[in-house]
Amino acid sequence: MSELRKDPTAQEWVIIAPERAKRPQQPPKIRRADALPDWDASCPFCPGNESQTPPEVFRLPLSGQSPSWEVRVVPNLFAALTFNGNIARRAEGSLFRKMNGIGMHEVIIESPSHNTPMALMAYPQVEKVLTAYRHRYNALKKNKQLKFITIFKNYGKASGTSLIHPHSQLVGTPIVTPYYRRKFEVAVNYYDDVGKCLYCDLLAEEVEKGERIVAHTKKFVVLHPYASRAPYETWIIPKRHCASFGRLPNTHLAELAMVLKDTLLCFYQFLDNPDFNYIFDTTAIEDEEDPYYHWHIRIVLRLADIAGFEMGSGIFINTALPEHTAKLMKEFAASLPQGECPTLR
Amino acid sequence: MSELRKDPTAQEWVIIAPERAKRPQQPPKIRRADALPDWDASCPFCPGNESQTPPEVFRLPLSGQSPSWEVRVVPNLFAALTFNGNIARRAEGSLFRKMNGIGMHEVIIESPSHNTPMALMAYPQVEKVLTAYRHRYNALKKNKQLKFITIFKNYGKASGTSLIHPHSQLVGTPIVTPYYRRKFEVAVNYYDDVGKCLYCDLLAEEVEKGERIVAHTKKFVVLHPYASRAPYETWIIPKRHCASFGRLPNTHLAELAMVLKDTLLCFYQFLDNPDFNYIFDTTAIEDEEDPYYHWHIRIVLRLADIAGFEMGSGIFINTALPEHTAKLMKEFAASLPQGECPTLR
Repeated sequence: MSELRKDPTAQEWVIIAPERAKRPQQPPKIRRADALPDWDASCPFCPGNESQTPPEVFRLPLSGQSPSWEVRVVPNLFAALTFNGNIARRAEGSLFRKMNGIGMHEVIIESPSHNTPMALMAYPQVEKVLTAYRHRYNALKKNKQLKFITIFKNYGKASGTSLIHPHSQLVGTPIVTPYYRRKFEVAVNYYDDVGKCLYCDLLAEEVEKGERIVAHTKKFVVLHPYASRAPYETWIIPKRHCASFGRLPNTHLAELAMVLKDTLLCFYQFLDNPDFNYIFDTTAIEDEEDPYYHWHIRIVLRLADIAGFEMGSGIFINTALPEHTAKLMKEFAASLPQGECPTLR
Repeated sequence: MSELRKDPTAQEWVIIAPERAKRPQQPPKIRRADALPDWDASCPFCPGNESQTPPEVFRLPLSGQSPSWEVRVVPNLFAALTFNGNIARRAEGSLFRKMNGIGMHEVIIESPSHNTPMALMAYPQVEKVLTAYRHRYNALKKNKQLKFITIFKNYGKASGTSLIHPHSQLVGTPIVTPYYRRKFEVAVNYYDDVGKCLYCDLLAEEVEKGERIVAHTKKFVVLHPYASRAPYETWIIPKRHCASFGRLPNTHLAELAMVLKDTLLCFYQFLDNPDFNYIFDTTAIEDEEDPYYHWHIRIVLRLADIAGFEMGSGIFINTALPEHTAKLMKEFAASLPQGECPTLR
């Protein structure tokens, strides 16, 4: 029989129905990124084509006259939000409210190499990508018109991207996102009730149980959450309480790069390069000092489409138990050659 | 410049960014349902294969010994929820809650014909499908373990289905869905504030403005909502206040069948048979008599994937203005041969 589980961080129920994994489905296509060329003349993100993007707002390395770069950040050419003029909140009739599309939409080009997804990058390169995220986060939060900054990655067609070159995105919005607003309210209620951070308590309980933990390093825990919304949903959580990704200390960068890359490499090898999204779930800009929220990375594989039931109800049907998928990940990591995915074993 | 609009029924903002429609995308594939065979020996929903589904719980016509049927309702063979045993809500540790997967998951087989989607059905056949929905809704709501019934359709691969034979689904859950819970709270707050149904007021304002109205019949309004989450999002709303689809009067069935089929036929012809979901947004079983909510059908085309930003933020980016898409639909309907889509002209 299936079961319903309540996500304590969202106070919402999820249906976990392993029986539904037996539905007739197409076999996954095997599709290795390293079979692609390392450089593509038609790709706007490949070296030599820099003029095809808007002028860059950040790059690594920071200095040097050479055209060579390791990471570039550029405004999105097809931005959902832009920084022109005023927000101008206003009413239309008695029911409707609107405002201008003021905000920021940037693309982080993660590597000069067209065919090296994050799963296959060297650790220092992943660290540079995280450095670029943090730099842009902290630069944009100074703008008082922005209330929230969402950093995310779309990887593979089912994730909503058509570009292959490794990249991620950052959107600064003039409103606090409803996803965060709901999670924040739950965390505040917990704090009022118990006097502690919900996520710190969750980490302690998960680490004690152990069955959903995939990796446990000095500074981070990788786990499959109790009420996962999709098979292999993964959270990477800093052990030290911190509301905002923008406050990630330099001393944590290298270790975060390792656990993120190892997690993605494990997916790449074990599940044949699956499509996925990741999101940096962080706090609103004004709440960075608060004791309530606790930033983390959320990785969601796109193995199945979001269908009418999920859209209609807000309830997700997950066909795998997180205890089971966490065990599979750990067993697979342990079977890898010595030196691969060291943080997952 | 793009704009943000607030959905008054969810109190959530949507980004409307027509510029993003210019992003490079694959051209839509033209794929006509009527090019498929009318009967498929391997389809579990085709006549003659009735033994491949669990025993039916409802059929039309109601009587008669013949194996011929017009609509069948059967339990889903790969049900997310089933009716075995007790709910048994319980705690796991101090943070986690779970319950057994008690509920109902049924499939409505809409026609014996393998290749006749609802867009191409005769009106009386659509009316029979609606009759089956209403019958199952009202039969299941008597079960005190069920709190909510979601009726929905997945059409085409991007919508989350792999079966071609025309069908829709019904899920009865032992919890009120979070989607409804949020919309209900907004509607209750509005009622407390203004003393009237939010949706009745919304209809009055939209009908007066006219620019987002696609059809306006005696009993129903078809519109593209002010803060549409995706291009061509469409709501079909009964003009008479009624919280629950289960209370749809017999005298409304034929007209609802007409506006639903005409809307889908217009999409089929104008947008080359697009993938879509529809959901019957109705009230919780216990709230059927309440003055707050107002049931309606929500149709969402799946022209683009749900990406990391939407998953991470809860904010949707729509690349079309609803005033524009409503105008395109009306102009297209007006260009059809006399007698086609009569409710949309």
